[in-house]
Amino acid sequence: MAPHLKVIPLGGLGEIGKNMMALEFGDDIVVIDAGVLFPAEDTPGVDLIIPDITYLKENRDRVRAILITHGHEDHTGALPFVLRELDVPVYAPRLAAGLIEVKLKEHRDTRDAQLEVVEPGEPMDFGCFRVEWFRVCHSIPDAMGLAIQTPLGLVIHTGDFKVDHTPVDGRPTDLSSLAALTGDGVLLLLSDSTYAEVPGYTPSERVVGEALDRVIATAHGRVLVASFASLISRVQLVLDAARRHGRRVAFVGRSLVDNVNMTLKMGYLSAPPEVMATLREVRDLPPEEVVIMTTGSQGEPTSALVRIASGEHRDVSIIPGDTVVISATPIPGNETVVSKTIDNLLRKGAHVLHDRIALVHVHGHASQEELKLMINLVKPRYFVPVHGEYRHLKAHAALAGALGIAPGNSFVMEDGDVLEIGPDWAEVTDRVTAGPVFVDGRRTWGMMNGVLRDRRLLSQDGIVVIVVTQDARTGHLLGLPEMVSSGFIDLEEQGEIADLTAQVVMDAVGGNGSQPLDSAFLAERVKEVTAGFLRERTGRRPMIVPVVKEV
Amino acid sequence: MAPHLKVIPLGGLGEIGKNMMALEFGDDIVVIDAGVLFPAEDTPGVDLIIPDITYLKENRDRVRAILITHGHEDHTGALPFVLRELDVPVYAPRLAAGLIEVKLKEHRDTRDAQLEVVEPGEPMDFGCFRVEWFRVCHSIPDAMGLAIQTPLGLVIHTGDFKVDHTPVDGRPTDLSSLAALTGDGVLLLLSDSTYAEVPGYTPSERVVGEALDRVIATAHGRVLVASFASLISRVQLVLDAARRHGRRVAFVGRSLVDNVNMTLKMGYLSAPPEVMATLREVRDLPPEEVVIMTTGSQGEPTSALVRIASGEHRDVSIIPGDTVVISATPIPGNETVVSKTIDNLLRKGAHVLHDRIALVHVHGHASQEELKLMINLVKPRYFVPVHGEYRHLKAHAALAGALGIAPGNSFVMEDGDVLEIGPDWAEVTDRVTAGPVFVDGRRTWGMMNGVLRDRRLLSQDGIVVIVVTQDARTGHLLGLPEMVSSGFIDLEEQGEIADLTAQVVMDAVGGNGSQPLDSAFLAERVKEVTAGFLRERTGRRPMIVPVVKEV
Repeated sequence: MAPHLKVIPLGGLGEIGKNMMALEFGDDIVVIDAGVLFPAEDTPGVDLIIPDITYLKENRDRVRAILITHGHEDHTGALPFVLRELDVPVYAPRLAAGLIEVKLKEHRDTRDAQLEVVEPGEPMDFGCFRVEWFRVCHSIPDAMGLAIQTPLGLVIHTGDFKVDHTPVDGRPTDLSSLAALTGDGVLLLLSDSTYAEVPGYTPSERVVGEALDRVIATAHGRVLVASFASLISRVQLVLDAARRHGRRVAFVGRSLVDNVNMTLKMGYLSAPPEVMATLREVRDLPPEEVVIMTTGSQGEPTSALVRIASGEHRDVSIIPGDTVVISATPIPGNETVVSKTIDNLLRKGAHVLHDRIALVHVHGHASQEELKLMINLVKPRYFVPVHGEYRHLKAHAALAGALGIAPGNSFVMEDGDVLEIGPDWAEVTDRVTAGPVFVDGRRTWGMMNGVLRDRRLLSQDGIVVIVVTQDARTGHLLGLPEMVSSGFIDLEEQGEIADLTAQVVMDAVGGNGSQPLDSAFLAERVKEVTAGFLRERTGRRPMIVPVVKEV
Repeated sequence: MAPHLKVIPLGGLGEIGKNMMALEFGDDIVVIDAGVLFPAEDTPGVDLIIPDITYLKENRDRVRAILITHGHEDHTGALPFVLRELDVPVYAPRLAAGLIEVKLKEHRDTRDAQLEVVEPGEPMDFGCFRVEWFRVCHSIPDAMGLAIQTPLGLVIHTGDFKVDHTPVDGRPTDLSSLAALTGDGVLLLLSDSTYAEVPGYTPSERVVGEALDRVIATAHGRVLVASFASLISRVQLVLDAARRHGRRVAFVGRSLVDNVNMTLKMGYLSAPPEVMATLREVRDLPPEEVVIMTTGSQGEPTSALVRIASGEHRDVSIIPGDTVVISATPIPGNETVVSKTIDNLLRKGAHVLHDRIALVHVHGHASQEELKLMINLVKPRYFVPVHGEYRHLKAHAALAGALGIAPGNSFVMEDGDVLEIGPDWAEVTDRVTAGPVFVDGRRTWGMMNGVLRDRRLLSQDGIVVIVVTQDARTGHLLGLPEMVSSGFIDLEEQGEIADLTAQVVMDAVGGNGSQPLDSAFLAERVKEVTAGFLRERTGRRPMIVPVVKEV
């Protein structure tokens, strides 16, 4: 039997983040992207979530390369963890490679990983796959899609993209190269679904440029602009507007400062030196000559903008009359913290512009008309929507259906599904291990369900530990039971409740001193008595942990 | 000195929820609304948040009445707690009174509270205040605003409102009564700010009616509609559409069933009996003759829709081909859980319509043009925006400014501020106690900052308790230290880590057995050693609680 092409999403399908996909034919596997997912409320204490690469480890001899589409964390952030386990070269566009290099150098065991820069239009072979990168527009420079020639036909992976005909860096999504590449027919299209529910076109970054220009031209005081640290085009727009209107720009926030320095050096950002300023320099300028760019557009608790808003930033504080532009949209889940930041800025006397009341942000993903354009340009035989929650994938498949992709040729997959493509058929035939792997502290953990469940419980009513010491020979309780608690009750009441609980437990289990009780039995009794008393007394149900010591 | 009018917001300014305001003149105080705020992520384990009524308790002899504008929880939910502390009559529109009565009966100590029904256009005296309720439209029937004649002039409080000229119950916001009431001039307008950032007009509920009618007319299978249990007009729209298209309607979810029964009985809802059905009855009908209305539009974990979506509902499961309409907008903070619910429904083969892709919801608050209409109709001398986060209040004040209310006559207040109004001046002169009071378990708690901080910490890396028993005479440690943990490490590794930790602690503090150590000193050492070892070993930083027992 001739080998088939296998398409195996390992992350990013059914969620926004930790994008990763394997493409397999015979003895060769290439991996597309290796991203992280930033944890949400339902995974408290988790630092990062990365894809499960069990399948790649089991097939390590066949993995030829990891191909990166662009430099965002949700496409590159898992590399330090993946490369610790897999010895495989990484190929990335120039800016992405620069960002990845910094990250790999931070970890001792990935310092020597092989990292290669790719350019669009220069095909490279990885086993039986010939891969050519092509330019797309996205909210970071140097974003690309992949044209992968396989023995069964051409596979197009869009990466994250939008169709911006007037991008700030002058490099639009390269539709003509894509048309040329796909002229002989396309077997499979894998396309970005993040905004597949949104009708129409995503506006060009230029639209934001006009809004920012107006603000920077007309504001009477200083202008503070908060955005994503990787949104270099937004930085360029601010620098350009500042230059036009006689202002100088200072940067706050480590990730932003680092990215600005790197992209200036690499040529992705251009600024006359007289526009750039340090915080110290702008402090001596009149307010109407100052722009400050900061991180913190998502309300991240330790970010520069949040600390500025709460009056806790070392170098920058709000002066009444400042104009603050939040040039971003809150990622779902961040609305509340962003709202609080806005309120704090207003309380300090700033004017605040945000995306609900002014056109100060556009996002980096294609809307429905652009997605249709992509499908119609590529005219694939098979279609797999990638990158997005399940409803985005379904919406994208519905669009493809409306454009004539037969339902049987369109596959709404989930991570771990194996789509097998033969010469004249395609079918989901198998599943491999896939799912979240948690980075918490120094290590990665596959199964944290019990730990996470306990953390959620602990955050509800706290924990109470009751320590009982039993004389192993006589069965006498030695001293009063000791109660410690956390997250359960106010410090003021803690002593009183602890004393009462100790007494209640003593009364219940301290009675018989004739012979020792089985310690598991004793623990169970202590737990029951404590839980009952505390529920009765406070109405709360803390986690109760009895400890029985025998001495 | 002649007495002044005092306006004292006790809740609902700078937040969405727990609305409460005191109006005071000389010996008389009236309170407007007494609502709850539903807790968010930053207050884990808290059941409800209510306003601090210290000020009212200190002035209990002067509080004449609590005046309710409408039956939503964020305006009435604190009554069971407030009436436990204050013996004061409550006056409410008829439906609100019905809902409040149920709530008060659930608590023994509020069962006998005095609750009176009010009708619009029938003025009542409370001390020096003469109060007349007037009809407004909102997302619950029988919503009203207040016209309060004070010795210094008329105060208008809009309650929550929108200007719907074609409401489902045929009772629009009573602009003509309001015009008549305010004809002699208005001292102060207090107006709903929740949507003050949104331009234009809020669409009429009729618009949703058309969308729901189309869905119910054309769906091939069953139609499930999820909305807020109190959104009775939405229920009416569904009942009407079902009747028109030969379907019967069953209800799922206790709060919805209760509200439907009550409003049918009170006449706020009308349905021919043949349209109403039980779940058992619709089970035997062909899918195209069935509508099911449910709770759960906010993704509440225990709600009917969420359990239906996850396949865990006892009576209802999704049949492929079902159409599910989520006729609501996620409240900020709920986006993620609503998204997961939608994904689960799609995975089970349902079509899902929600507010991002279809016009299946409009909200109940006035947008900018309606707010302007209110200000221009009432033409107040002084203006205080109420109900909303700080940025909504600021936006509303800006609107008022654009309509000619002088900045000095417009007051963006915060809870606890005291606005004093004299015959020809107004000024914020004082502050009273205000802020959140937490209902957690059986009791209300003023200060939970320490407890909440501990709960958040516990949810990060969990907790480790180390118990060391010391012989009080010899200083010998009795037995090995005992470690218990929760939310820290997987069950699998727990035993190993506990053994290692016990040994490390023993090695560090068990060495000298010549004389007993001070137990506080010993505890500090145990904590230090344990924290260091666990951080080194796992990279996590759990809360460490040492317990030293002396026997």
